[in-house]
Amino acid sequence: MANQDEADQGRDKPLLRALRGEILERPPFWLMRQAGRYLPEYLEVRRQAGDFLTLCYSPDLAVEVTLQPLRRFAMDAAILFADILVVPDALGQPLNYREGEGPVLEPVRSVAELSRLDMAGLHDRLAPVYETIRRLRQELPPSTALIGFAGAPWTVATYMVEGGGSRDFATIKAWAYGDPDGFGELMALLVDATTEYLEAQAEAGAEVVQLFDTWAGALPESAFGRWCVEPVAEIVRRFRKSHPEVPVIAFPRGAGVLYAGYAQATGVAGLGLDATVPLGWAAETLQTGATLQGNLDPLMLVTGGEPMRHEIGRILETLGNGPFIFNLGHGIIPATPPDHVAELAEFVRSWRA
Amino acid sequence: MANQDEADQGRDKPLLRALRGEILERPPFWLMRQAGRYLPEYLEVRRQAGDFLTLCYSPDLAVEVTLQPLRRFAMDAAILFADILVVPDALGQPLNYREGEGPVLEPVRSVAELSRLDMAGLHDRLAPVYETIRRLRQELPPSTALIGFAGAPWTVATYMVEGGGSRDFATIKAWAYGDPDGFGELMALLVDATTEYLEAQAEAGAEVVQLFDTWAGALPESAFGRWCVEPVAEIVRRFRKSHPEVPVIAFPRGAGVLYAGYAQATGVAGLGLDATVPLGWAAETLQTGATLQGNLDPLMLVTGGEPMRHEIGRILETLGNGPFIFNLGHGIIPATPPDHVAELAEFVRSWRA
Repeated sequence: MANQDEADQGRDKPLLRALRGEILERPPFWLMRQAGRYLPEYLEVRRQAGDFLTLCYSPDLAVEVTLQPLRRFAMDAAILFADILVVPDALGQPLNYREGEGPVLEPVRSVAELSRLDMAGLHDRLAPVYETIRRLRQELPPSTALIGFAGAPWTVATYMVEGGGSRDFATIKAWAYGDPDGFGELMALLVDATTEYLEAQAEAGAEVVQLFDTWAGALPESAFGRWCVEPVAEIVRRFRKSHPEVPVIAFPRGAGVLYAGYAQATGVAGLGLDATVPLGWAAETLQTGATLQGNLDPLMLVTGGEPMRHEIGRILETLGNGPFIFNLGHGIIPATPPDHVAELAEFVRSWRA
Repeated sequence: MANQDEADQGRDKPLLRALRGEILERPPFWLMRQAGRYLPEYLEVRRQAGDFLTLCYSPDLAVEVTLQPLRRFAMDAAILFADILVVPDALGQPLNYREGEGPVLEPVRSVAELSRLDMAGLHDRLAPVYETIRRLRQELPPSTALIGFAGAPWTVATYMVEGGGSRDFATIKAWAYGDPDGFGELMALLVDATTEYLEAQAEAGAEVVQLFDTWAGALPESAFGRWCVEPVAEIVRRFRKSHPEVPVIAFPRGAGVLYAGYAQATGVAGLGLDATVPLGWAAETLQTGATLQGNLDPLMLVTGGEPMRHEIGRILETLGNGPFIFNLGHGIIPATPPDHVAELAEFVRSWRA
């Protein structure tokens, strides 16, 4: 029974074992934004594609850039190459990337404007993403897990409402604080769309999914509960019902003290830590409830050498005795020398060896 | 003995009582950036001054804008109108504000470049700031405390090394992580300059001083200890020796879990909380060691009305039973309606009344 064999083999992938709570002799590792601008071969494909969204929506190219870092560094997981803002794009809020400016969207700022959005075209627009996943499952080495992902509703909503990146989130907070019921309609739509998107990714072959809540750290406690914790909990509840075999990791960046209790409240199997989370506190407070993932400062990867190895050593020693996946605390930045990534991979792989 | 009377009266100011650990029936309040662009009368003076630095260095104008919010809202404290970057400016790294761009400095990025800086001209350049403080002490209502301030060394260094604002602090981290001893020379200079600056402010009449560490949240644990906690602890140690009667507040914005132990490690009397610090945790973990100050989201002040009153109520109920100063979790933003500030002042003043 080849299918059963394949399934068993899948279960043995180090990333999936760690997410089931196993403590591995050598923690698995991958790096947020491991496919990206620090790699010359990525820049070459990016040039071919012409623009960033074309790259996301072209399975040939997206598969290629997803695989590039694995060829060099043999991470334990590949993460689908895509963008968190394909969801608003697929809901009818067209997304543009202007060079050097980041994402630009025609903002949605009221319940009336929500009528511009709907779920009808979601899967058609996102079909190339699912195709990328299907092809990746054919191409990946047998022990490498495939991670799908989406932005968490709060973070995606910040771009939808602000019309792009933001420093102080003035517009979205004015809406969320002043008219929580109206804003809740946008969030409910995003919960629906994100759940369906992740379900389709799992059906296409994603073995793990990660929810990026990049701007979770912008909210005070009460709003954090309502707009970060609750929507993610609802997505996880639905997704676990349809895909109990696919673990969910959430990354509520900047949650600070509110990391405590987050995994329990949302039901995620894995919890991504940003670089500021203290290691001892994480081991004591968080690791009993979830597999932790993180949290080297990406700028330490730019530095490299002994300072980097020292920090990696501290992380592995403090968190490596519980269920753990080594990663960065945020995405790789373009200035990162690929040699330092090789150094990191070598160091993590040889730990306790 | 008029002087003794005055001194006794000074000790009774609500802000100073709170900073001595007293629990006041009605907590004192002030608001970060309470003198600023949300006030039309500020914009008028700003126009007269021509540019922002001229305003900071003109005692007549700086006194006027410091007093403006007190006339409207009668806060319990005035905070000196100045800028955290006057220190590099006074050390010989000229500061410019370009309209809409924020601060611009010719960056200092190596030990060799530190030779451009020295302490010799510090007090001459900053003399107008001290004069502003002297005049303010004459003008303030008797129960209103005068707060002086400076940027904490890490935060000031980010601007000095990056040459302005930054998103990822790539340049300063490359230096701090890769060459901590060299970077330590810049930090030692900033500890010296900041201490002298605060001492001169106290001598001119500042009754409290606050250290703003706006970018403390950019650093992982080990670097936070070395570059945020240690320099502030050293400044406090020296300042308390020369001015034991002037309490120090520190505001390590974004410190998250690392707020725990910060007040003890630095020796500050007051600890400013950003808007993300959970209230129950703060009451339990932090308030036994320091007077807390904070932490309404400034965007809640833009919202106003019932949602704002509800949040203020939660803050006062949770933190108002220990030593506490009501404030925002970050500075007032320009879009804030002055009416909402009046509403806030009224609500805080009538609490438990």
